[in-house]
Amino acid sequence: MKVLITGIDGYSGWPLALHLLARGHDVAGIDNFVTRRRVREVGSWSAIPIPSFPRRREAVKAILGKEIRFYRGDVADWAFVHEAIRAERPDAIVHLAEQRSAPYSMIDVHHAVRTQVENLSGTLHLLYAMRELAPDAHLVKMGTMGEYGTPNIDIAEGFFDVEYRGRTDRLPFPRQAGSWYHWSKVHDSGNVMFAAKIWGLRATDVMQGVLYGTRTPEITDPKLATRFDFDEVWGTSLNRFVVEAVLGVPITPYGRGDQRRAFIALEDSVQSLRIAVENPPPAAEYRVFNQFDASYSMNELAEIVRREAESRGWSPTIEHPEDPRVEAQQHYYHPIHEHLPKLGYRRARSLEAVLSEMFDDVGRHKRRLEARRQVIAPGHVVWRELDNRARVPANPAPPPPEPVPPGPAATARPAA
Amino acid sequence: MKVLITGIDGYSGWPLALHLLARGHDVAGIDNFVTRRRVREVGSWSAIPIPSFPRRREAVKAILGKEIRFYRGDVADWAFVHEAIRAERPDAIVHLAEQRSAPYSMIDVHHAVRTQVENLSGTLHLLYAMRELAPDAHLVKMGTMGEYGTPNIDIAEGFFDVEYRGRTDRLPFPRQAGSWYHWSKVHDSGNVMFAAKIWGLRATDVMQGVLYGTRTPEITDPKLATRFDFDEVWGTSLNRFVVEAVLGVPITPYGRGDQRRAFIALEDSVQSLRIAVENPPPAAEYRVFNQFDASYSMNELAEIVRREAESRGWSPTIEHPEDPRVEAQQHYYHPIHEHLPKLGYRRARSLEAVLSEMFDDVGRHKRRLEARRQVIAPGHVVWRELDNRARVPANPAPPPPEPVPPGPAATARPAA
Repeated sequence: MKVLITGIDGYSGWPLALHLLARGHDVAGIDNFVTRRRVREVGSWSAIPIPSFPRRREAVKAILGKEIRFYRGDVADWAFVHEAIRAERPDAIVHLAEQRSAPYSMIDVHHAVRTQVENLSGTLHLLYAMRELAPDAHLVKMGTMGEYGTPNIDIAEGFFDVEYRGRTDRLPFPRQAGSWYHWSKVHDSGNVMFAAKIWGLRATDVMQGVLYGTRTPEITDPKLATRFDFDEVWGTSLNRFVVEAVLGVPITPYGRGDQRRAFIALEDSVQSLRIAVENPPPAAEYRVFNQFDASYSMNELAEIVRREAESRGWSPTIEHPEDPRVEAQQHYYHPIHEHLPKLGYRRARSLEAVLSEMFDDVGRHKRRLEARRQVIAPGHVVWRELDNRARVPANPAPPPPEPVPPGPAATARPAA
Repeated sequence: MKVLITGIDGYSGWPLALHLLARGHDVAGIDNFVTRRRVREVGSWSAIPIPSFPRRREAVKAILGKEIRFYRGDVADWAFVHEAIRAERPDAIVHLAEQRSAPYSMIDVHHAVRTQVENLSGTLHLLYAMRELAPDAHLVKMGTMGEYGTPNIDIAEGFFDVEYRGRTDRLPFPRQAGSWYHWSKVHDSGNVMFAAKIWGLRATDVMQGVLYGTRTPEITDPKLATRFDFDEVWGTSLNRFVVEAVLGVPITPYGRGDQRRAFIALEDSVQSLRIAVENPPPAAEYRVFNQFDASYSMNELAEIVRREAESRGWSPTIEHPEDPRVEAQQHYYHPIHEHLPKLGYRRARSLEAVLSEMFDDVGRHKRRLEARRQVIAPGHVVWRELDNRARVPANPAPPPPEPVPPGPAATARPAA
């Protein structure tokens, strides 16, 4: 199949591209490299070094003997999206090109607005381009389990049957997100559902758990590595815990640590997205996948990370910094996830096995972590009401930027 | 109370300002006059002529002896919003400054994106400005009954008690909107709910029915009149039916005409908003009002309009053009509305009495309608999938613009 991945330079976009190529699909990509820039904005970098995108493509050619067509640009730019979709007319679009950090969206009003405006514009542009140029294509859009929040009932897979005042209907499961970023995903979900209804587009909306891990089977060479973020803003909880253990600083579940979330390993996420791509729904169907393997509390994860560290002869401690987020500290959490297994999904990786790899891979780059250890602890992003009208603390001054590799020109023509 | 109305120059913003002044409140307003420009963009104008905003303020001073502080600018401009809220520090903000037309949002990708970006940015800016400068203020935000769509169960007032798989919770009622505009209101609702939760803001989210009518008790002089739109894009169904009857062309419920919607007269909407303002919720409470009086099918409304026209000696016919929208033609519709009556709301106006006034007021300006009769029928906005990849028909060429009255400068200082 012809698959276009928006955000192909990202943490999951890149391994997905490698996996789809290995499966024999024809892969094209879009990126504007904004995540590389924004990670620098908060003073951090990827724990695992990654080549520039032109070098990534060279490595794919040299190691896998495959080509990736590439369009450098921003999905928030309609003319660019229109030109790229017209050039590709893909069978499937996997849409990962969104601002993906909850803390980033909470920095201040500009980051909040930017997150929602960019994410909504990009998705609307893709929907309109599909309507005009690729009405039979299948949109696989990345959402998040965080759209649902933590209701006191089981979390349905997108839709649920409700009885209310003696009548019944099948309705979208209510969303109660926990950051402007998470709300941008909720808004996108509504927009995609509506486009499928009025234009007959086919769409899979992926409510993904928190990602973790450093490897997929196709990452056979350091030149094919994917990024790994660990700072307060761009790192997810489990990835951050591993970095803390490797650095020998306390592992830090926020608040009480009883918050429960759904998780999935990078390799299994890539598997899930491939299954979604290879099994498109019929026209006009909008379907939702709750894409995760298991849920853990932050304390459980901290404990598992501590055990892995101890097995390596270290003695990490666990500390509980004040929770910067506004979230239930103890709550019921039982999301349903049945759609992917019905299409053949089987969990490939255990948490323990992936953790062990993460320790190896991240440990190899300990000096890169040490150079950025000041960006791990929370405290720079204020989620709550302003205390006594205090102003939001300024961001830490970023270190000098990494050298930026020269990229292809910002046009919608495939780079040579 | 000190009340700031965003969108004070609009169909309901203006009569709300007059009503709050008459009740003794201190009223300030924000507007950028974009609705005046956009109605011209589709080749139409207000059936009832309205003075420029500076003349409106002069009329208020001359007739009511009151002052309105005014800030000309765009709520999508953060610096402007910040400056206006800092200058005012209002007790309540009634937020009406949003792109309010469903067909306008469906014209093409640019109108879709513009609608969602403007509406979300404006609301986010107000929320952040409140957080910093007016954390005890009360936000009354205009939503729409159209957020809910037409589910097969009763529509709760914002939240409902759900039982699912043996557990219960109180959750936001699911939204299934029917245009990019309606979805922008859904997205705003999520954002406001979240801000109330994390920052302790107080908010009333108004799910309003379709507005109709030309008068409120405070509109005692033509210089105090409010606008009245009747074209395909900016006119609501009932207002359009009246104009069709006055013009002697067929009354046109779209499609089968069994679509049911909730309605409220302009005067009763103004009453409701005033009650919301005068009865703020406690801090951190996000409450929802379903703000309407009764629901009618389009056929019922067409029939009522026909009877009123016949009582005036005319013989209108009813025709059913193809429905441009994607909406259920027959459906269950039973929204609950209990919150406003508990605060003392009583319906003041009957549909028949308001209709009779509308015939009088619109009939007085029949020549203005005749000059714009080509913009009433649907057909210029394509809501559905593109037929055989056909391009969206171009908009009708707009007539020469009305002369624009010179307005005060675009700064956030109150106009002199």
